[in-house]
Amino acid sequence: MPESTSKQPGVVLVIGAGDATGGAIAQRFAREGYTACVVRRDAEKLQPLVAAIEAEGGRAYAFGVDARREEQVVELIETIERDQGPIEVMVFNIGANVPSSILDETARKYFKIWEMACFSAFLCGREVARRMVTRERGTLLFTGATASLRGGAYFGAFAGAKHALRALAQSMARELGPRGVHVAHVVVDGSIDTAFIRDNFPDDYARKKPLDGVLKPEHIADNYWHLHCQPRDAWTHELDLRPYMEKW
Amino acid sequence: MPESTSKQPGVVLVIGAGDATGGAIAQRFAREGYTACVVRRDAEKLQPLVAAIEAEGGRAYAFGVDARREEQVVELIETIERDQGPIEVMVFNIGANVPSSILDETARKYFKIWEMACFSAFLCGREVARRMVTRERGTLLFTGATASLRGGAYFGAFAGAKHALRALAQSMARELGPRGVHVAHVVVDGSIDTAFIRDNFPDDYARKKPLDGVLKPEHIADNYWHLHCQPRDAWTHELDLRPYMEKW
Amino acid sequence: MPESTSKQPGVVLVIGAGDATGGAIAQRFAREGYTACVVRRDAEKLQPLVAAIEAEGGRAYAFGVDARREEQVVELIETIERDQGPIEVMVFNIGANVPSSILDETARKYFKIWEMACFSAFLCGREVARRMVTRERGTLLFTGATASLRGGAYFGAFAGAKHALRALAQSMARELGPRGVHVAHVVVDGSIDTAFIRDNFPDDYARKKPLDGVLKPEHIADNYWHLHCQPRDAWTHELDLRPYMEKW
Amino acid sequence: MPESTSKQPGVVLVIGAGDATGGAIAQRFAREGYTACVVRRDAEKLQPLVAAIEAEGGRAYAFGVDARREEQVVELIETIERDQGPIEVMVFNIGANVPSSILDETARKYFKIWEMACFSAFLCGREVARRMVTRERGTLLFTGATASLRGGAYFGAFAGAKHALRALAQSMARELGPRGVHVAHVVVDGSIDTAFIRDNFPDDYARKKPLDGVLKPEHIADNYWHLHCQPRDAWTHELDLRPYMEKW
Repeated sequence: MPESTSKQPGVVLVIGAGDATGGAIAQRFAREGYTACVVRRDAEKLQPLVAAIEAEGGRAYAFGVDARREEQVVELIETIERDQGPIEVMVFNIGANVPSSILDETARKYFKIWEMACFSAFLCGREVARRMVTRERGTLLFTGATASLRGGAYFGAFAGAKHALRALAQSMARELGPRGVHVAHVVVDGSIDTAFIRDNFPDDYARKKPLDGVLKPEHIADNYWHLHCQPRDAWTHELDLRPYMEKW
Repeated sequence: MPESTSKQPGVVLVIGAGDATGGAIAQRFAREGYTACVVRRDAEKLQPLVAAIEAEGGRAYAFGVDARREEQVVELIETIERDQGPIEVMVFNIGANVPSSILDETARKYFKIWEMACFSAFLCGREVARRMVTRERGTLLFTGATASLRGGAYFGAFAGAKHALRALAQSMARELGPRGVHVAHVVVDGSIDTAFIRDNFPDDYARKKPLDGVLKPEHIADNYWHLHCQPRDAWTHELDLRPYMEKW
Repeated sequence: MPESTSKQPGVVLVIGAGDATGGAIAQRFAREGYTACVVRRDAEKLQPLVAAIEAEGGRAYAFGVDARREEQVVELIETIERDQGPIEVMVFNIGANVPSSILDETARKYFKIWEMACFSAFLCGREVARRMVTRERGTLLFTGATASLRGGAYFGAFAGAKHALRALAQSMARELGPRGVHVAHVVVDGSIDTAFIRDNFPDDYARKKPLDGVLKPEHIADNYWHLHCQPRDAWTHELDLRPYMEKW
Repeated sequence: MPESTSKQPGVVLVIGAGDATGGAIAQRFAREGYTACVVRRDAEKLQPLVAAIEAEGGRAYAFGVDARREEQVVELIETIERDQGPIEVMVFNIGANVPSSILDETARKYFKIWEMACFSAFLCGREVARRMVTRERGTLLFTGATASLRGGAYFGAFAGAKHALRALAQSMARELGPRGVHVAHVVVDGSIDTAFIRDNFPDDYARKKPLDGVLKPEHIADNYWHLHCQPRDAWTHELDLRPYMEKW
């Protein structure tokens, strides 16, 4: 695969590595020689992921950071750039989907969903982009959802945050692309094979899983890797991922 | 015009009546017999608008409210429903466009733009919708912009807020439409004839204005009135407005 | 209604006046003083519409034209401009929705759907636009559908034609807008109260009609009239119309 | 690359292999062990491509077919399935961009652009899909352009054809996806490094090419390969490709 050799392995930073998707992405890049810096609020919970990467011969570091806090994000990026090296790839993967009638939605929850799924992305994206533009290279990948494209009933808060995240990705792509930074948005449309789905939608999971109707995190990760490997004359700024049997 | 007779005049609530657009909308509905409740942070500045409406024989009330504060919004809606009558139409018209490189954007400004242009809309929309669904009628109109559809370079914060606002409008439309509440989003694409444009872009204004290249607030207002008048078998959920000579 | 007085009544040309929608649009404009030129393949079938318009004191002329034939379209426009006067408004309203699996779709039907729903629009639009640009005014209105925005299973042919029609409307709007010609596309999403719907979906019709869940042609027509009345500093290029209870 | 091993090499059929892009895609798949069946109107002109693939040890067959003629398409697919084996991948890559004012566009050219860029795709796609659904596998890839998403001034005919092609791809994806056939649409936005661009826009080419501002056909091809390799739990239905410095 010629593209991968043209990229110097460096640091991949995964914000929101608490679920299977973020973990699979970190593992995928670690297998290609990247140093995985994985982040969630509670660093302790990242130990299995770090251990899994190390067991495969990779390098991984866990950071307990609340990505909604500017000072924590600023310090995180400074620390990694100093101690682990230049961040070549950032993956923003924090979701926050808690449906509700708009009539019952609380101000607190409406705010928190935006803060987690969008404001954090702005803080992390800005801090990392500031380094990347000086090096004229780097990849910023944002995980979207069906709600990124469409405001559905009962999804006012989540769709708002996800629409705003997509706007952030587009604005960054248009500003930073000509400066050498690749920004892409991935619309994941369908159930992902995570503990959350298995626990909360067991019947749906049991029906779809044997038919390949549930997205495998490692297959999502392959696409993030593919996006990062694209040479700059042919960049993708948005792609969708969904199981073949998903209605859309 | 047969539609107007089919609607009982009641209260039109205009949130963000500080600019020419909000004012023109309030005046338009007041001329049709609606009681205009107009809102901005400083009620004093609304006196010219109230006076203009009253001079035409209309009814208008000014409210000094910070629409980002839940308790103020809750009280506002309670007060109006008790003292002025049922809110038949709400227009959300607060903008907050301050472009910036994403590299220089401050967390404070990124947050404030969202808070003004989106979070306020959620608070006002929810409080009004709660009344409207019990009456199975009412119209909620949200003012959008070019940035509602497209994240441009240097517009990360504004596009984020406007995308989120559009997602809110869509989600509300899909949930509340079947309950009799008409929710629509208006994409205003182009310069509006306001003091802000005249002061900040005098050359552009001087060139376009004589050619009808600048949106007149009263013409925008005609479309809000039209949306409100639509019978429920044929509702519009989104329309765009731009001068004939505008590039898009 | 101030806008209507600013327009000089002239000729409204409705291509595809065979269904209730086209007829209602012709009637709406005729009531405003416009001379209605109505077109379908068999002019004889237009006599009830012509009679209805004349019974209200309006002027109407029926033309039997196959809008897929360039020479017929060219002659139609020449004739009307010479005999009835300048065409101020053209409404293109020919549909052709016959769903089919893409595996069974015939080349003949795939072609005919495009020819009726898109190629005819190009021919009519071009011929009328050639006159309108010399006068620097006029309105071209194209009727779209859900399939204009989204390719659904079994709708490959219809969605293709409708997407192409929307692209035509956008291209014309961008080229001809600055030359004074207003081009707009109306997305009608839902069942319209026509004989076709009553005959083919009687149960659905019987359920939705009493609840206002079926679009009334005269309400669609009000929106075409509204679009035509917009002054050039605030033009709409696309709007949607659907019943309040429609899923979308 | 684990995905490639999970696919059985078979036949890749490239319709529109006359330009650099179609050729590069054929070569890419041939290197992975696929038998390349390449098609354009004049088979003689395909000999350099066939020779290049064979020189690398690949298998390639040239077919002189007018893809707008149903009988020729039907025969082509029958012949390949019988002689070269099951078609695993079809790439539709015929373009036809000849800009024109809508006022000057001829009916003949408007029709021909649609016939080449859309009708051919329907014929080829239908014939190949009929085989693929019986095998419950296969990939159909359609090449789009900026005009697939937006009708620009002077692009009425091309945008119409490209919008219709996208609608075809979406409709096929929604119908055939659940039956195991992967349909994807690739939006190529920017100049591709072809003789056409070098000859017609020499200055633009000379400026952008050294800066990687021109899409390399082999990099486009990598993405077609990537799409084909996606396992069915994580399919992409649309992605865009553009140089990092392209305005969009």
